[in-house]
Amino acid sequence: MKIFFVTKNKHKFLEASEIMRKYCIDLEMLEINKPEIQSLDLREIVLHGLVNLYSLVNKPLVIEDAGLFIRALNWFPGPYSSYVFKTIGCQGILKLMDGIEDRYAKFKSVVGYIDVKNIILFEGEVEGAIAYEARGNRGFGFDPIFTPKGESKTFAQMSMQEKNRLSHRARAFKKLAEWLTRL
Amino acid sequence: MKIFFVTKNKHKFLEASEIMRKYCIDLEMLEINKPEIQSLDLREIVLHGLVNLYSLVNKPLVIEDAGLFIRALNWFPGPYSSYVFKTIGCQGILKLMDGIEDRYAKFKSVVGYIDVKNIILFEGEVEGAIAYEARGNRGFGFDPIFTPKGESKTFAQMSMQEKNRLSHRARAFKKLAEWLTRL
Repeated sequence: MKIFFVTKNKHKFLEASEIMRKYCIDLEMLEINKPEIQSLDLREIVLHGLVNLYSLVNKPLVIEDAGLFIRALNWFPGPYSSYVFKTIGCQGILKLMDGIEDRYAKFKSVVGYIDVKNIILFEGEVEGAIAYEARGNRGFGFDPIFTPKGESKTFAQMSMQEKNRLSHRARAFKKLAEWLTRL
Repeated sequence: MKIFFVTKNKHKFLEASEIMRKYCIDLEMLEINKPEIQSLDLREIVLHGLVNLYSLVNKPLVIEDAGLFIRALNWFPGPYSSYVFKTIGCQGILKLMDGIEDRYAKFKSVVGYIDVKNIILFEGEVEGAIAYEARGNRGFGFDPIFTPKGESKTFAQMSMQEKNRLSHRARAFKKLAEWLTRL
């Protein structure tokens, strides 16, 4: 089975591919712009993206949207994580968290799949904490400042295989894979 | 002349109304949800909103989107200012700006108008600086931490009339009013 994964993020693509390959599903990266609505709900963003992209691509496809939600910051940066990463980055988040004891945060991922008969969303999340400094150079985005619950390494200090054992994205893609194999 | 202003923000509505009234144009507040696309370009957001709303309302209408762009933060929070205000607020911005000498910032506004024959955008901006602490309780959003160039007060320390002499929003709405009166 082959499915297009519409994304411009190579890291996301590699992480998702590794998961899907275990279920004998091949992802193919399709780099086109997806128009995104501005919404506080990742599910709404993904649903809207699916419908728009399917009208262009007309083949089974998957998209994903994810965000980092920090409790002490009223769940900022949330659905705008990618923009916030590109502007103020990990250092901006660390500055905002300076002197704050409550480090609780979670990463959420919403994976959406569409084909001629189905449109379905899968969610994954991972709880953890904002580290006190950036550590590691693997992964992408806010990985260097996020430590999953029960772990001492940040996502950026883990191999892709280790990250995929725990990550929000891996959890959502596993649900998709299991659903697809039952189809 | 009467035009619907689609917004849920009473402050925006009052500011815009004051400007338009001088040109004998009445604005009427219409509180419906506008679906917003996620874009780094305010103009794109407004254009998209206009087209979508017109298909619902079918009457001459105006919408506005605005943002605060801070140079030292790679122009964060930009088009996501409203979300950033609701989560980390003025205090979050002040914390991010702590120890930063370059305080340059600008507010930008894009006003869009649509009727059966026209669709047109007007832009306004105001340069200034991020204050070292929040001052004043008028206005809304990031007004307490923005001091327009050449002024000592923040927007939140000004009356609506004073703010309307200088503001990005007033400048964009004046352009719309002048255009409408020439129609």
